[in-house]
Amino acid sequence: MNEAAITLDGWYCLHDFRAIDWTSWKLVSQEERTKAVDEFVQYLEKLNEAHVAKTGSHAFYSIIGQKADFMLMILRETPEELQELEAEFNKLAIADFTVPTYSYVSVVELSNYLAKDSDEDPYQNPHVRARLYPELPRTKYVCFYPMDKRREGNDNWYMLDMEERRKLMHSHGLIGRSYAGKIKQIITGSVGLDDHEWGVTLFSEDMLQFKKIVYEMRFDEVSARYGEFGEFLVGNLLDNDKLTTFLTVK
Amino acid sequence: MNEAAITLDGWYCLHDFRAIDWTSWKLVSQEERTKAVDEFVQYLEKLNEAHVAKTGSHAFYSIIGQKADFMLMILRETPEELQELEAEFNKLAIADFTVPTYSYVSVVELSNYLAKDSDEDPYQNPHVRARLYPELPRTKYVCFYPMDKRREGNDNWYMLDMEERRKLMHSHGLIGRSYAGKIKQIITGSVGLDDHEWGVTLFSEDMLQFKKIVYEMRFDEVSARYGEFGEFLVGNLLDNDKLTTFLTVK
Amino acid sequence: MNEAAITLDGWYCLHDFRAIDWTSWKLVSQEERTKAVDEFVQYLEKLNEAHVAKTGSHAFYSIIGQKADFMLMILRETPEELQELEAEFNKLAIADFTVPTYSYVSVVELSNYLAKDSDEDPYQNPHVRARLYPELPRTKYVCFYPMDKRREGNDNWYMLDMEERRKLMHSHGLIGRSYAGKIKQIITGSVGLDDHEWGVTLFSEDMLQFKKIVYEMRFDEVSARYGEFGEFLVGNLLDNDKLTTFLTVK
Amino acid sequence: MNEAAITLDGWYCLHDFRAIDWTSWKLVSQEERTKAVDEFVQYLEKLNEAHVAKTGSHAFYSIIGQKADFMLMILRETPEELQELEAEFNKLAIADFTVPTYSYVSVVELSNYLAKDSDEDPYQNPHVRARLYPELPRTKYVCFYPMDKRREGNDNWYMLDMEERRKLMHSHGLIGRSYAGKIKQIITGSVGLDDHEWGVTLFSEDMLQFKKIVYEMRFDEVSARYGEFGEFLVGNLLDNDKLTTFLTVK
Amino acid sequence: MNEAAITLDGWYCLHDFRAIDWTSWKLVSQEERTKAVDEFVQYLEKLNEAHVAKTGSHAFYSIIGQKADFMLMILRETPEELQELEAEFNKLAIADFTVPTYSYVSVVELSNYLAKDSDEDPYQNPHVRARLYPELPRTKYVCFYPMDKRREGNDNWYMLDMEERRKLMHSHGLIGRSYAGKIKQIITGSVGLDDHEWGVTLFSEDMLQFKKIVYEMRFDEVSARYGEFGEFLVGNLLDNDKLTTFLTVK
Repeated sequence: MNEAAITLDGWYCLHDFRAIDWTSWKLVSQEERTKAVDEFVQYLEKLNEAHVAKTGSHAFYSIIGQKADFMLMILRETPEELQELEAEFNKLAIADFTVPTYSYVSVVELSNYLAKDSDEDPYQNPHVRARLYPELPRTKYVCFYPMDKRREGNDNWYMLDMEERRKLMHSHGLIGRSYAGKIKQIITGSVGLDDHEWGVTLFSEDMLQFKKIVYEMRFDEVSARYGEFGEFLVGNLLDNDKLTTFLTVK
Repeated sequence: MNEAAITLDGWYCLHDFRAIDWTSWKLVSQEERTKAVDEFVQYLEKLNEAHVAKTGSHAFYSIIGQKADFMLMILRETPEELQELEAEFNKLAIADFTVPTYSYVSVVELSNYLAKDSDEDPYQNPHVRARLYPELPRTKYVCFYPMDKRREGNDNWYMLDMEERRKLMHSHGLIGRSYAGKIKQIITGSVGLDDHEWGVTLFSEDMLQFKKIVYEMRFDEVSARYGEFGEFLVGNLLDNDKLTTFLTVK
Repeated sequence: MNEAAITLDGWYCLHDFRAIDWTSWKLVSQEERTKAVDEFVQYLEKLNEAHVAKTGSHAFYSIIGQKADFMLMILRETPEELQELEAEFNKLAIADFTVPTYSYVSVVELSNYLAKDSDEDPYQNPHVRARLYPELPRTKYVCFYPMDKRREGNDNWYMLDMEERRKLMHSHGLIGRSYAGKIKQIITGSVGLDDHEWGVTLFSEDMLQFKKIVYEMRFDEVSARYGEFGEFLVGNLLDNDKLTTFLTVK
Repeated sequence: MNEAAITLDGWYCLHDFRAIDWTSWKLVSQEERTKAVDEFVQYLEKLNEAHVAKTGSHAFYSIIGQKADFMLMILRETPEELQELEAEFNKLAIADFTVPTYSYVSVVELSNYLAKDSDEDPYQNPHVRARLYPELPRTKYVCFYPMDKRREGNDNWYMLDMEERRKLMHSHGLIGRSYAGKIKQIITGSVGLDDHEWGVTLFSEDMLQFKKIVYEMRFDEVSARYGEFGEFLVGNLLDNDKLTTFLTVK
Repeated sequence: MNEAAITLDGWYCLHDFRAIDWTSWKLVSQEERTKAVDEFVQYLEKLNEAHVAKTGSHAFYSIIGQKADFMLMILRETPEELQELEAEFNKLAIADFTVPTYSYVSVVELSNYLAKDSDEDPYQNPHVRARLYPELPRTKYVCFYPMDKRREGNDNWYMLDMEERRKLMHSHGLIGRSYAGKIKQIITGSVGLDDHEWGVTLFSEDMLQFKKIVYEMRFDEVSARYGEFGEFLVGNLLDNDKLTTFLTVK
């Protein structure tokens, strides 16, 4: 039996992508639209209270292209809270003018490939805690994609022994570290929870950095031989003002 | 010709996943909604009578994310009963506000890889019976996924001889056993009945355990080389109160 | 050039799977529903006249789970007849309350892998004729799945020579024969007609037999190395009474 | 660099498959239906004038099963003409009662694998011209499928040298030739134009011939190792009378 | 660790494909249609001002077949501008009569495989700038397809060292160059931005050239062994007159 990496697990995470049904949105009165936007903003403000109180966090971005019109990524302590926030959104008036296009269920995760041996309880380490229960940034751009480690013929990640995997992950980590200050990365694990094994959410002030890091990593053996990628979605930060503008129609 | 494992087969099983059409649900009157919920609760109560009488069992959970809003898993003695319960649900008022998103047809199954030789009729063994005709638990969380054994190039489970498969399954079973008390697992076979070969339904008081067991098993050769996985769905227990709250809109 | 097996071809076959749109079905009056059911029963009676006259045959089953609500499998002498019966169904009132979910076009087929050399015209052999122009049974359960022979790397059925294929099919046939009396199997060929190479329709008084035969065969080299399977659908026999009950809503 | 086969290219080709929305078709008045059918027949007559004038050609068939209700295959000198005929169809009243289900864009093509060396300009050869600008037959049956040549591991058509490909295509062509008189085959190339590399349209007075030729060819190395097939659609000839009958509802 | 090619990145790019909902388009009054077309033409004129001012560029083509009715490809300096133009389109009246069918997010890209060593800042080179911030041509025809470099068993582009990749790309580039004057090619990189690694947009006065170049390249090792292709879409140039004609219904 092959040794699995031990993971540290933090907040539960729901990525929720929705398209706007512009045709029906235009059909209702200006007054009804204003009311729906106000109610939506209140919902977002409530999310923001949890973000400020550090009882959770969230990120809200518009999405470029037809895959979705916006992404709401929510972190919370329990699966029940995610479910309730999802149901609460569905009961908002704005929800009637949206179409669900994609969602992802996962848990903020740190893998121990690079961990130093220690007697310390990592969950008490403030640096670890800050990564397991992160305050999501409000950078200009976001990128989300799910991924798997390949299990195919001679390219089977899960048949490699721990030492080989650690060595490969070390080299992989070096690329990641070279983007420090340019990209903030949140890894969420979804083995047993959703269709891929991990979700990757990248935040940056420069969208090109998403292209650069993913391209550079693709030549690294971990991705080149063992990475399988789902769909990629990118977007722009939405604050309340931008949201209001976005949803304003003549 | 290669020897197949003999399986013991219990109750027929239908997993039925549905999304709620919130927009049309909000359009009808509060009175109509209350009536529809009451009728739905009666239907669930009828299922519960069978569960108590041990003539069948069921589990009812909300699902996180956009794949579905709830899952109803039903176990019964015959395919006809499953069909009738499905038709009965479709005739409920609540059904008009739901959209089918996924279903799975299977039979509760025990494989004999780990069986001891014996003259005993296993179907008379009370321990075996309890597993073939199980009382589904009401844990806080559920996880469902379908899976196959791979048949690809050198990784062809069905070309392995019985002894090799037994040895691999033994190691696999050890991981499973280490989760005893944390996870209750129901394996249902669907070869010849639905698109994958097995359905796996996990029940736990801690959703993280789903991630841990599936991740740990992935490094075991049975999964690493021979496991192919379909989609994963997770959810929270719904009782009548939670269902009523879930379906209440202003 | 590799020698193809010669096939004997009988009736053309259309499998037609449909879901019921229960919401719109409930919306119309009881009177309209009764009229639609009566007209549908008349259509089925007409099919039954051909079945009795042996100018064709058909099978009509409800389907378990969300893939469909019923399957109508029709055998006829010509493609035109299948087309006309399909159009005739579409013009029925009941069709307005159904949604097409899957269909399959094929021809009843016997392969000659196991044939004895003979000067006889097989199409004149009554035993062969009974299999090419079969009277479909009215067993309690049905199972349908399409399949292909694999053409992948070293597992390429179509690169095997005739002798190897014959040997493999012989072993495969032995399993099939061991289910005689429990399962009636109709093989229909669809190379050049639909997306897979064959359709398999199984009939039995015991749904578990579908699981047993497909599972046992999966360990046989023909399936283990060379079988590729599409989706599996199973259902319960529908006669006129059961159909009327099925379509009755309060 | 490996030598590509030179192709001769004739008319542009659009295969357009549509389903009929029977429910809405039944909802309008008999008068409206008659008007829509008459207008559709006029459109088809205009296509027929081009067919007679040999400025283009077309074929019109009903399709068996749920993939489509009819196929309109149109050949023209320029892409603009195809676009205009497609737009013209969409503006017909009948179009409002159809749902697009599949289409294919390609160019009638002759490959030079079997060509004899010659100084002649092949586009001036009347035999070649008749195949590049064909008059589509009005046989009872049609079959359409798209296909690719495989590029996978050791089975990579595009890595074979010209001589090997020519030899393989020669053997392949012998099977094709043995169906002369039974099947008329139109090969259209779609590399760079649509999702597969070729479209194959077969015409015959006997639908079984489609099954026989595709099955026989599958054992030939070109298909067995290098053929990848998309979906197969088959249908029956529609003339104006049959079309009117097809679209008549009570 | 394997060396990645350095890329030069220019304008952000959105390809937006839409089908027209002809049925609802015909339902509204001639006056409403005229107003919607006029508003759409104004939007296109605004795009044209940016094109003329060289602050961006765009291309507008009808698409042949059912995949879409038109493609709007827009190049801009920032992701925000693309998002705003997309939202602006969605707020137009014409948008209510269109259905999104496909979109692609990328960045105009030049790879340095063929670059000469130099101390020059390539972003200051006018020739490079003209390619990174291109004025899209108004040729009669367009072709778009996304693609990936394969990572499979022995055919893993990302495991090749830089020298091998450069050599292969050189040979590939020779084919491209032989189409100079016939095809204008815009490569956009989408690693980390959308589901494939690159988008390829070809412009030509002769649609056959798309078929010829893609077919010829397929025999080149870069494509034969390492190319994976998504869907191909082709179309005809739309100017304001053609657009008006296209959208005119009786």
